[in-house]
Amino acid sequence: MKIQLANKVQPLQGSAIREMFKAMAKPGMLSFAGGAPDPELFPKEEFAEIMQDVLTKQYRVALSYGITEGYAPLIEQTKERLRKMNIDTENNTTIIVSGGQQGIDLAAKTLLNEGDGVIAEVPSFIGGLNAFRSYGAKLYGVPVEEDGMDMNILEDTLRANSNIRLIYTIPTFQNPSGITMSLAKRKQLLALAEKYNVVILEDNPYGDLRFSGEDVPTLKSMDTAGCVLYHGSYSKILCPGIRVGFVCGMPEVLEKMIICKQVADVHTNVPMQMMVSELITRYGLERFIKKSCEEYGKKCRCMIDAIDTYFPENITRTTPEGGIFLWCDMGKGDSRDLAAKALERNVAIVPGFAAMVDAEAISSAFRLNYSTVSEEKIVEGIKILSEVLKDGAN
Amino acid sequence: MKIQLANKVQPLQGSAIREMFKAMAKPGMLSFAGGAPDPELFPKEEFAEIMQDVLTKQYRVALSYGITEGYAPLIEQTKERLRKMNIDTENNTTIIVSGGQQGIDLAAKTLLNEGDGVIAEVPSFIGGLNAFRSYGAKLYGVPVEEDGMDMNILEDTLRANSNIRLIYTIPTFQNPSGITMSLAKRKQLLALAEKYNVVILEDNPYGDLRFSGEDVPTLKSMDTAGCVLYHGSYSKILCPGIRVGFVCGMPEVLEKMIICKQVADVHTNVPMQMMVSELITRYGLERFIKKSCEEYGKKCRCMIDAIDTYFPENITRTTPEGGIFLWCDMGKGDSRDLAAKALERNVAIVPGFAAMVDAEAISSAFRLNYSTVSEEKIVEGIKILSEVLKDGAN
Repeated sequence: MKIQLANKVQPLQGSAIREMFKAMAKPGMLSFAGGAPDPELFPKEEFAEIMQDVLTKQYRVALSYGITEGYAPLIEQTKERLRKMNIDTENNTTIIVSGGQQGIDLAAKTLLNEGDGVIAEVPSFIGGLNAFRSYGAKLYGVPVEEDGMDMNILEDTLRANSNIRLIYTIPTFQNPSGITMSLAKRKQLLALAEKYNVVILEDNPYGDLRFSGEDVPTLKSMDTAGCVLYHGSYSKILCPGIRVGFVCGMPEVLEKMIICKQVADVHTNVPMQMMVSELITRYGLERFIKKSCEEYGKKCRCMIDAIDTYFPENITRTTPEGGIFLWCDMGKGDSRDLAAKALERNVAIVPGFAAMVDAEAISSAFRLNYSTVSEEKIVEGIKILSEVLKDGAN
Repeated sequence: MKIQLANKVQPLQGSAIREMFKAMAKPGMLSFAGGAPDPELFPKEEFAEIMQDVLTKQYRVALSYGITEGYAPLIEQTKERLRKMNIDTENNTTIIVSGGQQGIDLAAKTLLNEGDGVIAEVPSFIGGLNAFRSYGAKLYGVPVEEDGMDMNILEDTLRANSNIRLIYTIPTFQNPSGITMSLAKRKQLLALAEKYNVVILEDNPYGDLRFSGEDVPTLKSMDTAGCVLYHGSYSKILCPGIRVGFVCGMPEVLEKMIICKQVADVHTNVPMQMMVSELITRYGLERFIKKSCEEYGKKCRCMIDAIDTYFPENITRTTPEGGIFLWCDMGKGDSRDLAAKALERNVAIVPGFAAMVDAEAISSAFRLNYSTVSEEKIVEGIKILSEVLKDGAN
């Protein structure tokens, strides 16, 4: 039988990054292509201890259906953390979602009709871009400068396109660029969203992972107009395999997001919510965050030093103050060629095309992840990459 | 700021059942309103033992990102079970989803444009109906008879509405009616789907829980045309809080469902997939299924005996051969009144309106669940219900 698919899904392609991961799975691969925290930092002993208790003493709660909004103690603990960031949890609704990705999906479903416009940073997170595409949204790209989105292009885009309903931003330690939006630009962004009546989706999975510089307030903490949906996650500070994230935002939007979540997966799996909640109760999160910041700070500095030592001079790079990514640019050419050649030498990187708003665009940039590779391997991998880069120039 | 929501979500209401659950949470409630397996049958000791190993010996796999299609060993084990049911896993794609509900949501997103038609049984599962509604689908109801959907009305509906893209059915131990579709009707249904070029979503979370009568082949096992998406779950045979289900169907549909899952939650949480997989490896599923069938068979017979002894004669009931629900009908009146009066006497039931395709419809029927209540409490609760029913008649 010939089956007709929905219009909105017909043009969808799988994440180029996730497809590449399959090719990268061969043994001995030195991967700068990941987007995950270091498995050696996962609180595995603590989790094992906690799950023993959860599955024996609290199995009725853990293994039964839960409520859609999330496991109540974890919601409270999440709100407590948000309040410490000066986010108003009283006039916003906070829910647990099945990883940060689900929060983006639910926001897209709740806010977007087919053909509605979404502004995204260039470069941006492919999982976010693909979520918007999957609801038939039209994407508009705004370049990221050293201090965040170009505000002039942002306003021009908003002015020229009345169909725009949402601005998607990762303002802190951005994926893939590692760039953090300045306070001045955050204030401009909020003013523009209010002026053009557009919702901001502030995606902040990396915000806790600062290893240098000064904290910049989240957009949500300055959101007096009620236009920011704040999305966070336990994936990057604890581990991603458990799929536990959260959303805090305007009650009238969250009310519909909760219904969409009810039909999407009923609720986030309960045992993993309880595991995170118990970890916070017994150990707090700070020790795990502190350790991650120390490790990623060291690794980032190591990668920057290696790049500055070995890469050809024409390659530019960003200087992250936190998070797990940095972004390099060859200035010309297609980084897919570089990625393919590097893969032959067992080094994996993410070519920039995957982070482009225009799915057909070519990019000369590439993303490097430093969280999961040892310092020794970082130097080794950067040396190999520099050789590939120099070969390419001949 | 006044936020404009997407057209498709504006009319959405939360599940009436799940809202009622909040009212039913008071202590001492005798609940026939649940839809879950008995917590005393959860394999909790086995799970605790397994998770200890998973989180210490396999933490790198368990806590890291997984692949969207699911944990490979669990996919293989699931396919093995499907093959035993004569389902062709070679020419179909099988994936793990975050509970049966996610499978319905992904199918709806992949197959339906706004305004497309979906045929559902009357009564049907509210979570399925709401998933279709959330994508702006138009629902058409077909009454369920003692042996399944009324095939004449089904064909009339298909003939009269060229916008219909999907038939949603729970053919075995249906939720909420407990009815099983006959083999003859299954064959008719397949022929009609092929004739009118419509996909069948066969939702079969209860199929393993047969306690009397003879097995009837699944629609998927007879699907020569490639028109059936088969949805199963580990929720009812193991436990629902872990959110692990599966879908097996046509590769060209599954390909897009996988992309939709990638943007929905990246992948189903890995530790719970590994827990189920290890349970199957170490213990098999049969012992757990057998125990459930024995228990639910006893409880169902107990409930039927109590109904036949105590209920007024005008109340009709179904006779399930498996699953966890039976369905009673007062013949006239609104069962919401009955439910409200029963709740005052600490007995919870699900009034039938929640299972109607027409969200405004009134129903004189109600759903009773027997899986989570002891036999003693079943008799006690049915006695109270019979008093409320008799009061209502005065």
